[in-house]
Amino acid sequence: MNRFGERFSFTSFGESHGKAIGCIVDGVPAGIKIDEAFIQSELDRRRPGQNQYATARKEPDAVEILSGTFEGVSTGTPISMIIYNTNQKSKDYSAVKDLFRPGHADFTYFHKYGLRDYRGGGRSSARETAVRVAAGAIAKLMLKEIGVDFASGITQIHDVVGKARDFEGAKGSEIFTLDASVEQKQKDAILKAKNAHDSVGGVALVRVLNAPIGLGEPLYARLDAILASAMMGINAVKAVEIGDGIHSTELLGSENNDPINKEGFKSNHSGGILGGISNGDDIDIKVHFKPTPSIFISQETITTEDEEVNCELKGRHDPCVAVRGSVVAESMAALVIADMVLLNMGRKIDGIKAYYAN
Amino acid sequence: MNRFGERFSFTSFGESHGKAIGCIVDGVPAGIKIDEAFIQSELDRRRPGQNQYATARKEPDAVEILSGTFEGVSTGTPISMIIYNTNQKSKDYSAVKDLFRPGHADFTYFHKYGLRDYRGGGRSSARETAVRVAAGAIAKLMLKEIGVDFASGITQIHDVVGKARDFEGAKGSEIFTLDASVEQKQKDAILKAKNAHDSVGGVALVRVLNAPIGLGEPLYARLDAILASAMMGINAVKAVEIGDGIHSTELLGSENNDPINKEGFKSNHSGGILGGISNGDDIDIKVHFKPTPSIFISQETITTEDEEVNCELKGRHDPCVAVRGSVVAESMAALVIADMVLLNMGRKIDGIKAYYAN
Amino acid sequence: MNRFGERFSFTSFGESHGKAIGCIVDGVPAGIKIDEAFIQSELDRRRPGQNQYATARKEPDAVEILSGTFEGVSTGTPISMIIYNTNQKSKDYSAVKDLFRPGHADFTYFHKYGLRDYRGGGRSSARETAVRVAAGAIAKLMLKEIGVDFASGITQIHDVVGKARDFEGAKGSEIFTLDASVEQKQKDAILKAKNAHDSVGGVALVRVLNAPIGLGEPLYARLDAILASAMMGINAVKAVEIGDGIHSTELLGSENNDPINKEGFKSNHSGGILGGISNGDDIDIKVHFKPTPSIFISQETITTEDEEVNCELKGRHDPCVAVRGSVVAESMAALVIADMVLLNMGRKIDGIKAYYAN
Amino acid sequence: MNRFGERFSFTSFGESHGKAIGCIVDGVPAGIKIDEAFIQSELDRRRPGQNQYATARKEPDAVEILSGTFEGVSTGTPISMIIYNTNQKSKDYSAVKDLFRPGHADFTYFHKYGLRDYRGGGRSSARETAVRVAAGAIAKLMLKEIGVDFASGITQIHDVVGKARDFEGAKGSEIFTLDASVEQKQKDAILKAKNAHDSVGGVALVRVLNAPIGLGEPLYARLDAILASAMMGINAVKAVEIGDGIHSTELLGSENNDPINKEGFKSNHSGGILGGISNGDDIDIKVHFKPTPSIFISQETITTEDEEVNCELKGRHDPCVAVRGSVVAESMAALVIADMVLLNMGRKIDGIKAYYAN
Repeated sequence: MNRFGERFSFTSFGESHGKAIGCIVDGVPAGIKIDEAFIQSELDRRRPGQNQYATARKEPDAVEILSGTFEGVSTGTPISMIIYNTNQKSKDYSAVKDLFRPGHADFTYFHKYGLRDYRGGGRSSARETAVRVAAGAIAKLMLKEIGVDFASGITQIHDVVGKARDFEGAKGSEIFTLDASVEQKQKDAILKAKNAHDSVGGVALVRVLNAPIGLGEPLYARLDAILASAMMGINAVKAVEIGDGIHSTELLGSENNDPINKEGFKSNHSGGILGGISNGDDIDIKVHFKPTPSIFISQETITTEDEEVNCELKGRHDPCVAVRGSVVAESMAALVIADMVLLNMGRKIDGIKAYYAN
Repeated sequence: MNRFGERFSFTSFGESHGKAIGCIVDGVPAGIKIDEAFIQSELDRRRPGQNQYATARKEPDAVEILSGTFEGVSTGTPISMIIYNTNQKSKDYSAVKDLFRPGHADFTYFHKYGLRDYRGGGRSSARETAVRVAAGAIAKLMLKEIGVDFASGITQIHDVVGKARDFEGAKGSEIFTLDASVEQKQKDAILKAKNAHDSVGGVALVRVLNAPIGLGEPLYARLDAILASAMMGINAVKAVEIGDGIHSTELLGSENNDPINKEGFKSNHSGGILGGISNGDDIDIKVHFKPTPSIFISQETITTEDEEVNCELKGRHDPCVAVRGSVVAESMAALVIADMVLLNMGRKIDGIKAYYAN
Repeated sequence: MNRFGERFSFTSFGESHGKAIGCIVDGVPAGIKIDEAFIQSELDRRRPGQNQYATARKEPDAVEILSGTFEGVSTGTPISMIIYNTNQKSKDYSAVKDLFRPGHADFTYFHKYGLRDYRGGGRSSARETAVRVAAGAIAKLMLKEIGVDFASGITQIHDVVGKARDFEGAKGSEIFTLDASVEQKQKDAILKAKNAHDSVGGVALVRVLNAPIGLGEPLYARLDAILASAMMGINAVKAVEIGDGIHSTELLGSENNDPINKEGFKSNHSGGILGGISNGDDIDIKVHFKPTPSIFISQETITTEDEEVNCELKGRHDPCVAVRGSVVAESMAALVIADMVLLNMGRKIDGIKAYYAN
Repeated sequence: MNRFGERFSFTSFGESHGKAIGCIVDGVPAGIKIDEAFIQSELDRRRPGQNQYATARKEPDAVEILSGTFEGVSTGTPISMIIYNTNQKSKDYSAVKDLFRPGHADFTYFHKYGLRDYRGGGRSSARETAVRVAAGAIAKLMLKEIGVDFASGITQIHDVVGKARDFEGAKGSEIFTLDASVEQKQKDAILKAKNAHDSVGGVALVRVLNAPIGLGEPLYARLDAILASAMMGINAVKAVEIGDGIHSTELLGSENNDPINKEGFKSNHSGGILGGISNGDDIDIKVHFKPTPSIFISQETITTEDEEVNCELKGRHDPCVAVRGSVVAESMAALVIADMVLLNMGRKIDGIKAYYAN
């Protein structure tokens, strides 16, 4: 079940150490200028190997469009994109071939399928998330046409919490922090763990700006529900909040309800979603990433033959997946919103009549 | 989009003040004894009007099966269930007919659809969740056949946090608390808010016991992702955690990874899910409910004609939706697991060969 | 898998001798006047017991709407409809309880599910098609708003083929014939079979008038493909043709291609569909029904215990299911077109921009 | 909507004159030996340029697997396949850039999407069907594991009808005819049309052998309904029959019902499907192809600017698409059956218990 989305959907393929990864984006409306440089620039934001806070693995992640455009414009047919894998060091994985790395999907994939591609996590590798960013870029190109925009950044690394929400500043930060005043502490937390051959978790915030009122299809494709699915489905994510999230539990109803006046909502505890439908305010989604499971400290585990052994990992891994993960989260938000924009069309008979009157 | 689930699915209908609510459960395997008393008992757990911590509204919530069984056994055809609405006081809502209640879906439904059934929230009312409990009961009947079980309870009310996880004890608690040592404080928090015409939030914990290894369909129907969608889609939910959830962010990788030995996983930070697939351990899901938006304190709002007015609510509402919401969350977990059990079949060619060899 | 349709969908439930049959129609746009008298009138067209060419079984088929409307108008929430079964003579079926009626689904349901509701075919009974007509009526109410209309009738009974396409005349015919000049012969064919305790097949033609250009979602939800699925899925249907259908095989390309000029297509061999997309011409679908499998002549069969026995049927059955089946086929066409109208929205970015600009 | 299938599904991409065509096959069970030579051999059967009865266009159609296998065995992850386009003569199409070829999808795609890739039909080209054959080959590899087999051939070209059903013989025939006694006449019909710059239609028969009893998911994923959709969705198909199909209309019930005895069904008018579910007999599907719309005779048409012009086609086209189309039809049948085999699992609780007991 490698498809995400209903009307604006993408289906992904590929393993971390296979020939290529890629996807088919289906449901892209005709007539959108498909700016390949923009798609590549989105991938470049997620690309590893750019600084000491991320894995040293270098993947150019050059994306190629194979279909669905004609003279640079979408035709309404499926847009297929491919990224060839170029920096595979499969031999790095021979040592873990027969054992289950703690915190990884090795154990569960092996039992589910009866066999597994042990090279770098195979299908379960976060490498696949490059594809989501490519598909998300197409979603953004569509949404730009109706004025919707996206922003993201890091609020927390390990126990270093930022208060500010400086999305512009985050773009220039090596760790995408939203609060420059804690950036150094957050970087230090990453490096401290890295130097101890360990890893840390972090929290990303994604904001959707200028979304139309009315997105979300109750009751079982509510906007918050689908966003939660999109985010929880990202590698290493263990919690998702909308708006005030866990904090709203500790508020009284009189504190948490957003009063309304002629200018709109006077506060935004709800995170832009009421009853599962967007209310026109900023949509805020917080995504909690666990620490990278790949660490270079010896760990207890067993082999596929049920022998107890020590797991000694080598290779190159992000000490904090939340950083690059924030780009993936932003892309998933774009994919959800694009789908919701299409799903919402046709909910009023007047809109249908206007559409077909032309 | 009122269907939930792929293979074991239910489609729901009904408004809080319409003739009836109900659902069609599709994909129920043939040969299961459909115990109607059990289904009713599940509904009774969620039923309002049972004590001072819930709404005084009395709904018998008597469920009737209309199809899909023959001589008390499921036939493999759709099971339709109906609950007639009996305690409708639609006139209670005439005062709010033209205004948007803060914190509610009134504003968003009105703008999405161009009109709304203003009686008690209409479709957006938590009344519909009775249907999820009925469908969840069918899921439980199926899952009992392969030994899967469910439990739930309340960990937190407002700022009163329980540490214990006494699922048996929760069954006997009027507020389903998992920690008897804080029960009185949690009750007090509810009553204090209620007496102030206000409301409080709370946190439910759902646990799935004895789930088979291998549930979850990567990459886009991962078990954690679908659980997140199921939970975030419940009325008033603003955050969802799996396993250690938000807490895992503050752990190091070496603390958060669950070591493995011959007996299995030595700890369960992961909450029973690795790479989006169940690992055989208990599956833990935490669900955060905001305070009930219906409060009896005057609030600022506007009318459908954009006039600023005070919203003065009357009627009967739960001061803390988390309590009854925990039953809904448990039911949604059962629906997700039932679907995943069916989806997982056929993932190994050997299993297919064995199935068709008979 | 009892749902039909993607955006405008219905999910059906119910057995021929259960408490009720019914459905949930999901995706109905808000703002449509839901004319219950019209829905009932559609059901009345399909209703049995009206003349000697149909079964003598009398089912009032009174439909009740349970949800999804407010003050007579659709609200965008699911419309549930229920038809209680009132004329069940389950004892009629005690004789066939343990045997497989030739030509029926008894054998396959029993083997698929391991058990079956033997009363009147249970779920496989054509009784369920009443629900499709009710759902189709909602589809028609939506489509009327954009000017799409439907017509149907009978072209052939057994070997009596009509040439004329008099859709108005068909409405007044007891056997819905499209060609009054062969009506008596077609009636005679039915009565001759009926009197011989046998049955005959027939062919229905459904025409969609004034469908917008552009309906159909290539490549795998092409309009012709989905129509074919909708029609072949009706009880007793064994063949489906679009436009010239089987006849086009015997034409040359130069005869079969429809030339185009400023007024449009000069002929309509294609049946209004090119490349799986509607071209604005009338959409013609021919549906071939086999003779009713329920006959009152002794037939060879076996029991569920694998004993060879004679099957001696009693009860009341249509001697020619094509007649009432034509109404079902027309309803299914409406359901397909309604879905395609919604699916087609959002295929051009300009349409999306216009939709959200308001 | 470029996906076909529910559990065993494929999503296709690509235009006739783009960089590549391909697909992602999702839901392939783990543990199947993926024989690439077999997949290529299936493509070779459909490949053009092999004799005078098909287009002279030469496409090597070399398929490459990009993901989803490890050491030659399926891993349960998506199998992506790609076929690069190598023999594109896009300039052939400059003459038809602005006009609508009669019988083609040009008109409808242009109006649906507002623009079109005019090179060789773009997405609507039958070139895409190569992808279906590749995906179908994977389906066959899976189905071989449980003994299901497929055969196909041509029963009719233009008005030359064969009676024999010699599936072995068809494999050696240049036009896949099932009746060697009419082969020359059928070939003559093709060449006569070809020499007159015209085209002819034809009929393919697909047979599924040894399908398990119980395939097909009533009511809306009946086996016959989904087969009808699969076949009608193939380019140029205008009619689909199951079993006796249109002929069954002219039979009496007593002639059409298949009697049952201990050995099974004594005849097979039903074509192996009763009530939408396979009964264990051979499944017979007849597929009617219209004559190729690309002919080299001047035709009336209009331009995108609504000017009346003559359409004068050049290029290379099959004079009879039914021949190569029969291979596509057989592949689609395999895809449907593979999906149904997976969907059918879990319909009995006993089967589920057995599956999870291991």
